[in-house]
Amino acid sequence: MQQTANPVLVEFTRGNWVENRHRAAFCVADSSGKIVASAGDVDHPIFPRSAIKSLQALALFESGAVDQFALDDRDLALACASHKGEPIHVEGVERFLDKIGMSADQLECGAHVPSDKAAREAMRAKGETPTALHNNCSGKHTGMLAVAKAMGVDPKGYIEQDHAVQKLVRSCVEKVVGDTMSTDRCGRDGCSIPTWASPLRGFATGFAKLSDPNSDLPALYTQAGQRLFDACAQNAMLVAGTDRIDTDAMEAFKGQLMMKVGADGVFCGALRNSHLGFALKVDDGSVPAAEAIVAGLVASLAEASDAQKKLLAQWSHKTTKNWRGFEVGAAHLSGEFASFL
Amino acid sequence: MQQTANPVLVEFTRGNWVENRHRAAFCVADSSGKIVASAGDVDHPIFPRSAIKSLQALALFESGAVDQFALDDRDLALACASHKGEPIHVEGVERFLDKIGMSADQLECGAHVPSDKAAREAMRAKGETPTALHNNCSGKHTGMLAVAKAMGVDPKGYIEQDHAVQKLVRSCVEKVVGDTMSTDRCGRDGCSIPTWASPLRGFATGFAKLSDPNSDLPALYTQAGQRLFDACAQNAMLVAGTDRIDTDAMEAFKGQLMMKVGADGVFCGALRNSHLGFALKVDDGSVPAAEAIVAGLVASLAEASDAQKKLLAQWSHKTTKNWRGFEVGAAHLSGEFASFL
Repeated sequence: MQQTANPVLVEFTRGNWVENRHRAAFCVADSSGKIVASAGDVDHPIFPRSAIKSLQALALFESGAVDQFALDDRDLALACASHKGEPIHVEGVERFLDKIGMSADQLECGAHVPSDKAAREAMRAKGETPTALHNNCSGKHTGMLAVAKAMGVDPKGYIEQDHAVQKLVRSCVEKVVGDTMSTDRCGRDGCSIPTWASPLRGFATGFAKLSDPNSDLPALYTQAGQRLFDACAQNAMLVAGTDRIDTDAMEAFKGQLMMKVGADGVFCGALRNSHLGFALKVDDGSVPAAEAIVAGLVASLAEASDAQKKLLAQWSHKTTKNWRGFEVGAAHLSGEFASFL
Repeated sequence: MQQTANPVLVEFTRGNWVENRHRAAFCVADSSGKIVASAGDVDHPIFPRSAIKSLQALALFESGAVDQFALDDRDLALACASHKGEPIHVEGVERFLDKIGMSADQLECGAHVPSDKAAREAMRAKGETPTALHNNCSGKHTGMLAVAKAMGVDPKGYIEQDHAVQKLVRSCVEKVVGDTMSTDRCGRDGCSIPTWASPLRGFATGFAKLSDPNSDLPALYTQAGQRLFDACAQNAMLVAGTDRIDTDAMEAFKGQLMMKVGADGVFCGALRNSHLGFALKVDDGSVPAAEAIVAGLVASLAEASDAQKKLLAQWSHKTTKNWRGFEVGAAHLSGEFASFL
């Protein structure tokens, strides 16, 4: 299926000439599903990847795991996190595992070195090998182990699409997004769990609902949504880590903004006051391009102060230096971007 | 200036759904400028980056440096290289510098760690710091120092667009490409020299001329073109390095193919027997997407054997594994790609 060309929303200019172009689509919606702003094809199914960890985390509420294990906001933030493997993350996941009486060797996400440079170098200096705890998805996987335990099912193989845990996760996401996920549009994520493709329109609406205590979701979901929104918005360092747009922006908006990156150029999020949700995907999968777009979206949608605008501008217009330190160009929002707001 | 959407030539499929799309343009031309095959906008100026090092190296002939310093094919291959900083490259550049009586501290390309993992780890194990010799462009920069010396000008500042060396390099490229480079379409490359934007059509024709002893270029250029073609095609390891498509493909075609990657999704090259030149640029700058396209182009244009086709297919259809080793998807040529050949 050939997708219609989405608009160019981000460009990289080298010297005085545009070198690279990134096409993308985005959707901003309220909790009734009304589209407030959009660009490109918002009905084409895209893989949301890690951008919907907070929707997947609804299974912690649906299964009763939150009450059973007395999970706090830090546990919930880690369940929604794509972290950098910094000490704060690794220790947090260890505590979460302790709380549910399970261990790191039950995590099925695989191991990789921390994406945080300082954490990586510290590990190398000590001669340590990365474990599943350092995987950026270790908190989400711990949450899925908690769901398995609360459901009373064998956690083994919890990453597979026909395991009870993934069936519950899928049904939670479907309820909020308002779409039936199909095995015809399914892939395996970097951390091995299934990712289901669905349109940006549904994800934007779903995040709006998460932020809106008066949405049409069942009471369990609206309450869980409020709790997850606050857990993420107020524990941004746990959700993302050092020098990440998610951390910087959520901290700058002091509880009013929840947002989350997904691999291959995805972001989802919502604003507390306006109850607007947003979702975006860059066609070619570029994360820096997605960062520029989300920075532009948040700056436009939130009633941002000058300081907040300045912070966001650092992500929506990012200069590149070469090996000698010369500024050779900049990634920036296209001239067309503003026309979609 | 808004460019018309180029076609999607490469897709990344995760599971059973296309996750990412890469739009691109390519041009295949003969030495008279006749287009044999193309996709997308071949008249839109693009930055060729390192893909035209062999055209820039014509200045070594124009200045008389090749004769004056008795440069051999290995020196010429290094002048055309984007290498990985492996011992073979570093030693080769040191020998080239000796030959012209200059030293590494005159290189203005800046230093970076070798892109080759083994070379990088060996350097780290010895506690060494990278120098300009390890910069992937150190051979080209040594060539530019040779040009300066042959011209009798002060080499200092040879990276600037108004230095005599860059003026000569620019004029050589203009002559072969058949376009006047403009300061309105100029940027600074990663290694600090100017890169001039010009259409794919001209680059494809220029490379066809490089491969054709009977092109309409002046005799100095046709002879230099033959020499540069052979120097690259027969010293692929010097031009690129270990585990690179340029190395693998040029070695597999045993002197019949010359090709070169450029940063941000560019390739240029030519075929010896058919005298066809090609040039391509991926809109979003993806190098893996460009590798898939060039593999598809070469497989189609060259009279490839089964073994050569098999090798190229490894680059035009590349699977991705996740942290657990599961195959999660593949980057591959789009269904549309073949329709442009």
